[in-house]
Amino acid sequence: MQFPSKLVEEAVDQISRLPGIGKKTALRLVLHFLKQDKEYASSISQAITKLRNEIQYCKQCFDISDGEICRICSGIKRDHSMICVVEDSPDVIAIENTNQYQGLYHVLGGVISPIDGIGPSELKLNELFQRVEHNQPEVEEVILALSPTMEGDTTSFYITKKLKPLGIRVTTIARGIPIGGELEYADEITLGRSIMTRSDLSED
Amino acid sequence: MQFPSKLVEEAVDQISRLPGIGKKTALRLVLHFLKQDKEYASSISQAITKLRNEIQYCKQCFDISDGEICRICSGIKRDHSMICVVEDSPDVIAIENTNQYQGLYHVLGGVISPIDGIGPSELKLNELFQRVEHNQPEVEEVILALSPTMEGDTTSFYITKKLKPLGIRVTTIARGIPIGGELEYADEITLGRSIMTRSDLSED
Repeated sequence: MQFPSKLVEEAVDQISRLPGIGKKTALRLVLHFLKQDKEYASSISQAITKLRNEIQYCKQCFDISDGEICRICSGIKRDHSMICVVEDSPDVIAIENTNQYQGLYHVLGGVISPIDGIGPSELKLNELFQRVEHNQPEVEEVILALSPTMEGDTTSFYITKKLKPLGIRVTTIARGIPIGGELEYADEITLGRSIMTRSDLSED
Repeated sequence: MQFPSKLVEEAVDQISRLPGIGKKTALRLVLHFLKQDKEYASSISQAITKLRNEIQYCKQCFDISDGEICRICSGIKRDHSMICVVEDSPDVIAIENTNQYQGLYHVLGGVISPIDGIGPSELKLNELFQRVEHNQPEVEEVILALSPTMEGDTTSFYITKKLKPLGIRVTTIARGIPIGGELEYADEITLGRSIMTRSDLSED
């Protein structure tokens, strides 16, 4: 692609480094910036720089935070007896949006993945174990909400094993057929697991 | 959507002002920024600010330029007898990418659209007429490459009428069935126009 100016080319190169944005979209954004007043471009770039420079992480749950302790950890209405373990911040946002969970979180920052060189020490795992230990008997349950991949399962297994001696209830979120999903289109592994972990209707 | 931090919310708000980027994509970009080092975010925001503050427009054709006169206008290999009139910079890039045109350009900055309050004086139309007049007899042909909309056609008509007294050849790019397009899927207006403006094969 031939660009009319070095500045445009530079900006396109930079913007197209973003995930999901190719050269054509980047060029469209660049031309959009040029059509708007200078304030528009500077307010967006300031927000990005400010975000990156001033962002903090909660000292308790390691989620993104405005202060030393995040809104959820310091919330008086939250249920401090439950800790939901997730991989990353977007997972917290996703669970919060369901409005179904009132407990606390713990953001690991990833899952154990030897291929990518991520061992337990690269994650906030020791911090989780210490947090659970120090907050006994307040913490009663640790809910694992990790990806249903080999790495996620490995991490879940690791956490379960480490928490067992503390006598804390460790649960994992249900895997199964999505609500509204049709059986015939579900993959065999999900369907198989949903049969194995079936729930009892006659008990209620 | 609930955000874990005011900074994240601000950045998402700003980034989602970009065309084609909604809140979810903006959040994905924000979390991507947080995962990369600080240099990454600052290099992108610097490129945007620099672009917006330092961009120049060619004094002859009004395309985006690095200097007072753009690369195309100052190109010695370009055919200075032809001026292709386009709405905006992306059109120049698109035509340049075809490698079929060696002449010069003139970027209007839009088309005449009374509904949007854009009259001839809001566009670089007088600049076009003066440019053609001052560069006679060098300029022999003005090619109109405007959108096939009512506004584009109005603008084409306006330019044609103004240039007629100067005795300059005014042409418009061909409208018709796209190469590789099938007749049965073409809309009636395009098909109708392609019949009316048919080209003679027996003449060659």
